[in-house]
Amino acid sequence: MGEYKIAVIQGDGIGPEVTQEAIGVLKAVGAKFSHTFTFEYALAGGCAIDACGQCLPAETLAACKGADSVMLGAVGGPKWDSVPNAQRPEKALLGLRSELGLFSNLRPAKIYDALADACPLKAEIVAGGLDILIVRELTGGIYFGERGYRKGKYGVEAFDVEAYSEVEIRRILKNAFEVAMQRDRKVCCVDKANVLETSRLWRKVAEEMKSVYPLVSLSFMYVDNAAMQLVRNPKQFDVMVTSNMFGDILSDEASMITGSIGLLPSASLGDGTFGMYEPIHGSAPDIAGQNKANPIAAILSVGMMLKYSFHLEKEAEAIENAVKMVLEQGMRTPDIYSDGTTLLGTKEMGKAIVECI
Amino acid sequence: MGEYKIAVIQGDGIGPEVTQEAIGVLKAVGAKFSHTFTFEYALAGGCAIDACGQCLPAETLAACKGADSVMLGAVGGPKWDSVPNAQRPEKALLGLRSELGLFSNLRPAKIYDALADACPLKAEIVAGGLDILIVRELTGGIYFGERGYRKGKYGVEAFDVEAYSEVEIRRILKNAFEVAMQRDRKVCCVDKANVLETSRLWRKVAEEMKSVYPLVSLSFMYVDNAAMQLVRNPKQFDVMVTSNMFGDILSDEASMITGSIGLLPSASLGDGTFGMYEPIHGSAPDIAGQNKANPIAAILSVGMMLKYSFHLEKEAEAIENAVKMVLEQGMRTPDIYSDGTTLLGTKEMGKAIVECI
Ligand SMILES: CC(C)[C@H](C(=O)O)[C@@H](O)C(=O)O
Ligand SMILES: CC(C)[C@H](C(=O)O)[C@@H](O)C(=O)O
Repeated sequence: MGEYKIAVIQGDGIGPEVTQEAIGVLKAVGAKFSHTFTFEYALAGGCAIDACGQCLPAETLAACKGADSVMLGAVGGPKWDSVPNAQRPEKALLGLRSELGLFSNLRPAKIYDALADACPLKAEIVAGGLDILIVRELTGGIYFGERGYRKGKYGVEAFDVEAYSEVEIRRILKNAFEVAMQRDRKVCCVDKANVLETSRLWRKVAEEMKSVYPLVSLSFMYVDNAAMQLVRNPKQFDVMVTSNMFGDILSDEASMITGSIGLLPSASLGDGTFGMYEPIHGSAPDIAGQNKANPIAAILSVGMMLKYSFHLEKEAEAIENAVKMVLEQGMRTPDIYSDGTTLLGTKEMGKAIVECI
Repeated sequence: MGEYKIAVIQGDGIGPEVTQEAIGVLKAVGAKFSHTFTFEYALAGGCAIDACGQCLPAETLAACKGADSVMLGAVGGPKWDSVPNAQRPEKALLGLRSELGLFSNLRPAKIYDALADACPLKAEIVAGGLDILIVRELTGGIYFGERGYRKGKYGVEAFDVEAYSEVEIRRILKNAFEVAMQRDRKVCCVDKANVLETSRLWRKVAEEMKSVYPLVSLSFMYVDNAAMQLVRNPKQFDVMVTSNMFGDILSDEASMITGSIGLLPSASLGDGTFGMYEPIHGSAPDIAGQNKANPIAAILSVGMMLKYSFHLEKEAEAIENAVKMVLEQGMRTPDIYSDGTTLLGTKEMGKAIVECI
């Protein structure tokens, strides 16, 4: 019987379409479980550049800050490739993350039984399913360090600084340990401690935190090895926690390994319950407006919102189960279509999921 | 009819065993093609720490500098895990690279027909084989920038600096374009230009260099996407060129995708013809001294030496063909053994390859 105010950033390309279906699902959940969700629309990314010359207008930030959580479709597209760097659509994402203090990015990489065939890895490697959660630091590291030009050994050089304080490391690790407690209680901290000072600090803080979570088993792995192990034996992982840059690479690799990138949601969280939720897929401008996009990632993203921001476990489960059900019934959008299944458009897929709730 | 002086760093674990077989192969090539190879042994890594308290003794560097090329087995192992950082076996590798000016690391990721089954990716993804060459910058970037502690926004923070000058970028890109000319003439420059200043400089230099190699097609890809594409559709790549850190991650991912990590060689080159050659696999201390290690990666590494440092194309081909032959005849070391093939030890595999030369 809660009331929740959600800022909606539809964004570019297929963003508006998939967001619309997610909103439909939230409304269905509201009706069934007697919650009220209200939506406030705001612009960010390419459409904001077009509308007001800025990728992240002040009103958008204000709308987000005034809401209980944010739902985002997707931003960017080749249309804005020539826009100067400071206003590129991606900058909207980075700005939202840092301005909203969303330092923890949860990226599940999961294989749905019904879609196991889409996995690019051999069946024996992922037999029995795959369920990894990557916890990526999102407001620090080389993404937000100083950068520019300076004098170096070979003349002028470009530079970017990777930096992490104990505070930043501790809060993201805490997050990883906490979610691990709800899962298989294994945390793998991925770094490059044989080279980087920042990585060595991550290890030190992780070692300290271990005693606070005696039930969680902690391991360390070099990032190059992790990139290999995700291909060789991804089932060894439960929770992987890592820096912003390594997390960017590994979470995308892990998503691709599931073979179902159109299905994967993500959550970006801060200190409180406020979060930003978005599919991990891009804005796919080539299929925008054609009722072809897969809305499942957006729908599962609002599922994560219910779970992580509003602590509505039952409701979140209802969404997950509805998705599982339509997949098991063989309903497919074009990106996951195969012989013998039923082809649906974006809207029809959204409707089918609503009906299962 | 050449004379070539080779510094041999056997290193730790299985290093000495596999190196020995590679030397045997070089001798066979020498006998057949009338070249003289002489070998000077030097210590580096864990065994050097044990022998003289230093992972990279000055005599070793001198021996390398006095040679025409270096052959390295593998360094490191858990035995030296508690050694202070500055003397860790890995530091020997980094020291060799920078002291010998080996800025260009060539890492082929190739599937041998006879071993196609070992590939973790589904057969249809790699149908027709896979042959990628990753060109990794090896003496710059965050591996060799300043690092340490400083005051930051949240108190003391650890930091590492990624830096690249145009000179450093140009020479590695030149290398990538040159090798692409011998291959399928496609270069994919992998970076994170939507975030990093260094990446933007890489793009600028690459754009400039394009006109020098009009026959080569140049593309750019973000590193997160590259990590995905290697799983989704690795066959799209010919030559991938990238920074030290991204190259570390992507080259390991690409190796694993071939499924034959025990077979993959690498070359590290500088300005001239001098190079250091080594298998990409580790020191595998668990099987050291048991005649179980696969010597093929070491053997193919000296093949690369013949090709890239001594320009002995025919001789290099002889080694590659010999390896192909034994694989086609079903000879296997334990790491690549499967039902119906013939199990051989390290020495026997070396001998079999020698016989094919
Ligand atoms: C668009 C880009 C800046 C962004 C990132 O690197 O964080 C994206 O790749 C992501 O992972 O959300
Ligand atoms: C041992 C380590 C420092 C090294 C690196 O990261 O360069 C290794 O992973 C490699 O790729 O040769």
